[in-house]
Amino acid sequence: MARGQDQAAAKIDRPSSRVALLNAAGELMTERGTIDVSLSDIAKRSGLNSALVKYYFGSKQGMMLALMEEVLGRGMAQMAGLLTMDIDPVEKLKLHIKGIITVYFRFPFINRLLHHMYLDPDLDHVVGERISIPLATLQRQLLEQCAANGLIRPIDPTMFYFIVVGACDHLFFSHQALRIAFGIDGVDDDLRRTYTSTLIELLMNGMLARTDFA
Amino acid sequence: MARGQDQAAAKIDRPSSRVALLNAAGELMTERGTIDVSLSDIAKRSGLNSALVKYYFGSKQGMMLALMEEVLGRGMAQMAGLLTMDIDPVEKLKLHIKGIITVYFRFPFINRLLHHMYLDPDLDHVVGERISIPLATLQRQLLEQCAANGLIRPIDPTMFYFIVVGACDHLFFSHQALRIAFGIDGVDDDLRRTYTSTLIELLMNGMLARTDFA
Repeated sequence: MARGQDQAAAKIDRPSSRVALLNAAGELMTERGTIDVSLSDIAKRSGLNSALVKYYFGSKQGMMLALMEEVLGRGMAQMAGLLTMDIDPVEKLKLHIKGIITVYFRFPFINRLLHHMYLDPDLDHVVGERISIPLATLQRQLLEQCAANGLIRPIDPTMFYFIVVGACDHLFFSHQALRIAFGIDGVDDDLRRTYTSTLIELLMNGMLARTDFA
Repeated sequence: MARGQDQAAAKIDRPSSRVALLNAAGELMTERGTIDVSLSDIAKRSGLNSALVKYYFGSKQGMMLALMEEVLGRGMAQMAGLLTMDIDPVEKLKLHIKGIITVYFRFPFINRLLHHMYLDPDLDHVVGERISIPLATLQRQLLEQCAANGLIRPIDPTMFYFIVVGACDHLFFSHQALRIAFGIDGVDDDLRRTYTSTLIELLMNGMLARTDFA
């Protein structure tokens, strides 16, 4: 009984209610393979009143923006840390690709969420400034570090961005397609690792300068 | 006047009204960057009555299925023809990748349309059987032809499928992101060609067996 009361008390605590709503939204988006989830379903999943969405986030769009920041904020900061790490630039590039796949593995809805916000004239520049532009800038700098050391052949960073983001994302884009067309019931850790190593090997073999080449 | 009457007559001609509705739907999906377009907007764009959607396709879902077949049917048949062509298997693989990018260039909404149908329990197997499974099968056979000739290193065809489809698609996924994050106002033929050649070079360098390697 005491534990039940503690849990009930925790539910009206502001920070954790806020996070519970975001977690519920993310879970439903992942399970259903679409970001089109209703506030009442989010409320039901979180055990909270849907009016709290307005209270914490102002609107459903505000909640989506908060979800984006919750999901990508920390990862973006970690990625930026790669630049100054004292390791082989090619290793940085590999870690970067691995990091992107890990984000999609945990939050497979994220590119659709970003696109949804790109369609909103009030949010499109926010998404650009906080996510896409920093990501593209980081990749350009990583590629420059590799190229400066003669480690890779030149590649257009914009082309690299779309190739890598698209390739990293697509395994997670539709678990329905994965199940029906390939008989694979969801992406587990093994499949994620296989995908990561296959993609990294393919891209690195494709980009690395071949010093033993004519 | 006679010409005006001919045009009016043409509009109730079944095949062309049907195609006009599909074209209008595809145009709106492309322009808006979302498959979420209303029947009344499709009617307005085509100059036809939205009731014709029910007449020709039974429902909006039926129209989406018809759009998928219209857009992908011919391309799927052409792709299958690659298998029996008397050219270098590596060239077949390149033509295949080029073909996929061309489809996304013309119909950037297509993966979202497929995914939307994967979410519908009445349509998911249709999409699998008509599109995803034949595409995956074709790719596996192309990879086998290349591997049998010692032209490429072994690669898991399922991993290949998601890497290639995702990479081919992503430049076209969001013209809003392209504009805001990269200052690129839509994908023109030049950009499509650059993307195609960059991706093909990257993947082929990544996969080709290096006979001059240790």
